[in-house]
Amino acid sequence: MAQKPSIPKGTRDFSPLEMAKRNYIFNTIKDVYALYGFQQIETPAMENLSTLMGKYGEEGDKLLFRILNSGDFLSGMTAEDLTESNSAKVAGKLCEKGLRYDLTVPFARYVVQHREELALPFKRYQIQPVWRADRPQKGRYREFYQCDADVVGSESLLNEVELMQIVDTVFTRFGVRVCIKINNRKILTGIAEMIGQADKIVDITVAIDKLDKIGLDAVNAELAADGIPADAIEKLQPIIKLSGSNAEKLATMREVLSGSDTGLKGVDECEYILSKLTDLNNAIELDLTLARGLNYYTGAIFEVKALDVQIGSITGGGRYDNLTGIFGMPGLSGVGISFGADRIFDVLNQLDLYPKETVSATQLLFVNFGEAEADFCLKVLAKVRAAGVRAEIYPDSSKMKKQMSYANAKNIPFVAIVGETEMAEGKVNLKNMETGEQQMVAPDNLAAIIKG
Amino acid sequence: MAQKPSIPKGTRDFSPLEMAKRNYIFNTIKDVYALYGFQQIETPAMENLSTLMGKYGEEGDKLLFRILNSGDFLSGMTAEDLTESNSAKVAGKLCEKGLRYDLTVPFARYVVQHREELALPFKRYQIQPVWRADRPQKGRYREFYQCDADVVGSESLLNEVELMQIVDTVFTRFGVRVCIKINNRKILTGIAEMIGQADKIVDITVAIDKLDKIGLDAVNAELAADGIPADAIEKLQPIIKLSGSNAEKLATMREVLSGSDTGLKGVDECEYILSKLTDLNNAIELDLTLARGLNYYTGAIFEVKALDVQIGSITGGGRYDNLTGIFGMPGLSGVGISFGADRIFDVLNQLDLYPKETVSATQLLFVNFGEAEADFCLKVLAKVRAAGVRAEIYPDSSKMKKQMSYANAKNIPFVAIVGETEMAEGKVNLKNMETGEQQMVAPDNLAAIIKG
Repeated sequence: MAQKPSIPKGTRDFSPLEMAKRNYIFNTIKDVYALYGFQQIETPAMENLSTLMGKYGEEGDKLLFRILNSGDFLSGMTAEDLTESNSAKVAGKLCEKGLRYDLTVPFARYVVQHREELALPFKRYQIQPVWRADRPQKGRYREFYQCDADVVGSESLLNEVELMQIVDTVFTRFGVRVCIKINNRKILTGIAEMIGQADKIVDITVAIDKLDKIGLDAVNAELAADGIPADAIEKLQPIIKLSGSNAEKLATMREVLSGSDTGLKGVDECEYILSKLTDLNNAIELDLTLARGLNYYTGAIFEVKALDVQIGSITGGGRYDNLTGIFGMPGLSGVGISFGADRIFDVLNQLDLYPKETVSATQLLFVNFGEAEADFCLKVLAKVRAAGVRAEIYPDSSKMKKQMSYANAKNIPFVAIVGETEMAEGKVNLKNMETGEQQMVAPDNLAAIIKG
Repeated sequence: MAQKPSIPKGTRDFSPLEMAKRNYIFNTIKDVYALYGFQQIETPAMENLSTLMGKYGEEGDKLLFRILNSGDFLSGMTAEDLTESNSAKVAGKLCEKGLRYDLTVPFARYVVQHREELALPFKRYQIQPVWRADRPQKGRYREFYQCDADVVGSESLLNEVELMQIVDTVFTRFGVRVCIKINNRKILTGIAEMIGQADKIVDITVAIDKLDKIGLDAVNAELAADGIPADAIEKLQPIIKLSGSNAEKLATMREVLSGSDTGLKGVDECEYILSKLTDLNNAIELDLTLARGLNYYTGAIFEVKALDVQIGSITGGGRYDNLTGIFGMPGLSGVGISFGADRIFDVLNQLDLYPKETVSATQLLFVNFGEAEADFCLKVLAKVRAAGVRAEIYPDSSKMKKQMSYANAKNIPFVAIVGETEMAEGKVNLKNMETGEQQMVAPDNLAAIIKG
């Protein structure tokens, strides 16, 4: 046989079982999004490169997959263009379109393009693949799904509150225990203002994050090594040692940041959000080391960690002002979350949390003994399918053993055997594949037994 | 404001309402596929060009969207390569990957690549977008979804029977009256054999198809103009004039094709399939002019026409032998169908057949009068959402008029108004937006009223 065909590196096929699990994840998230009034949109896989370029930093531009212009893409290019060996410049002439890199920029583009049709605030969710020409590695793919929900056009913190409720509900439905961490960009800005080291905020959060591992002295040494002056490090001590309940942390921060209006605004926002979230099933915790998307977020920052599996953040998000400004529509604030489908898939696998019924496909297989028997089965099939049972007949009258292997391979829980005896009685011999038990069942009673 | 951003020609954004309608279509099809034991898979948007090239004819190769190699894609190209102005050759060096053109070739690739994991017959369905660099025009897009189901690894005609039952069930669920047309490639081959004009079979079906419009004499004249000899045209007369019930047509064909083993095999196959399909809700009709995918199909050919809307075929399919032979795994026969989602969308729109509940999003909006009222509403919201009601609170305490416009724009059927009076009573004032009727309702009774 010829060499097996393959797929591009960093991409995946999803088997029936994987799809059933992924559908369970997506459907759970979709249901909860809908429960909170979010509506689904979809945007094209291809966007104009003018929409995508410059939105993800220089590194991001390099990771865009570009689509070769169709037709005679070389026309209009000079010999000079082509022999320059300047890939970036040549790419600009060869390609006008690229594959979606995330769902946020297409969403911003959508809002601006369709602004006349939209009722603001616009609460949308979107579950689609994105593509990045990253170096593939364990858990990092070149094609993967994002599951985003965003509210645009409202500055109310109730949006943050509801997004955290969504996170809590989704993971409760999955049966995954999580810790929701929140922070606020304004608090981080306040800290930087306070110590006069605006450009060092990332270094500071990175160092603080190591407290548990390396201890206070080592953290202070690292801060000094980062070039932060001794008096600033001194001022940071209450923040590095911050602990206790959310209320205690907020009280400390309010004191430490008393000189920064922005910082206090951040404390107020956190306090408001936490005060509305007293009924969550999962813990929610103020965590100053949370600095994701720092160049991007302007208010609340969220991250979700699974408690029972060692894995990175499985959901994240935050508030960004001026999302649509890049497309000429300033002044719209947005806040959103994104569930990490691939990591959630791994978590549910590791904890074996998929409900049995969501990953079961066919419930009943009719064995095929020949045309007369098949004719009988087709009538019964019509009946059970009308009752909502997922059922099939083995299409060929192959050997019994082969048909039973098929039932096993497909994990089908019930097999109906119809031979001459059964036809004469007008019944089917129903075998429970788990217990091995067999019983004669009238067609009208089949669906009820199979549905348990 | 800057110029509005746009999307590549031939692509589309889908609004919340369009998505709700499309989800209704996809979910209906998915449910029926699952009822017949088909399981979903997904394949990557990008395939290696070696997988795609040469599978869709020369014209198809030109319509592939190619992905520029990432990194320094010019390295390894000589100045000569680049200045040849030979787009096809240069494209071959610049690109190794292309976007999926249909779901059939990726499915064949999937079957070969994963053959060790598969239990044959393999019944898979797949609902994903495909991309073609076609000239965009009304109803033809560069990105569109296909909804395919195929059985591979079984030659049994029961597969054809079940696929037609699926078609019948899906359109019955949609409430769309259709005519299912079937033909068989072997019958067409038999006709060609019989008149000794194997290469003229397409011309013949095209001419016959015009009988109703232009009459027998004109059809015969066209056949002559196509270069078909008079004696062959004479032999074709019973076929051109073929009419009556399926049984009558089959009897005629059996007589006409008595000299062709292949032709008679085709008649047998049609007869078997039709004999098992006597209980359909829709008409099924033998139609010899059906010649879709003639280079491709080897047995049954299907097509579905809507009876109440003027539009092309809305579903099609057929049997193809040796699907996986192109990837080095010969001898596997397949049969499949593909629902045309975009056309079905148009048909359901024209006939206004979307069930109301499938296109409704938020069911209940809480008006926001300020923080105290919002706090009260958040508790009620938790209650109704737990009962499965899709509900939201307007995030800002904006003017009542603005909040009511939002409810109208989003087509929300119920609005809950909570002010001081309601809070004092521990109730909400529920307004039915359709009738204008208002009533005071206890939080525990809300969900039941809204769910009707």
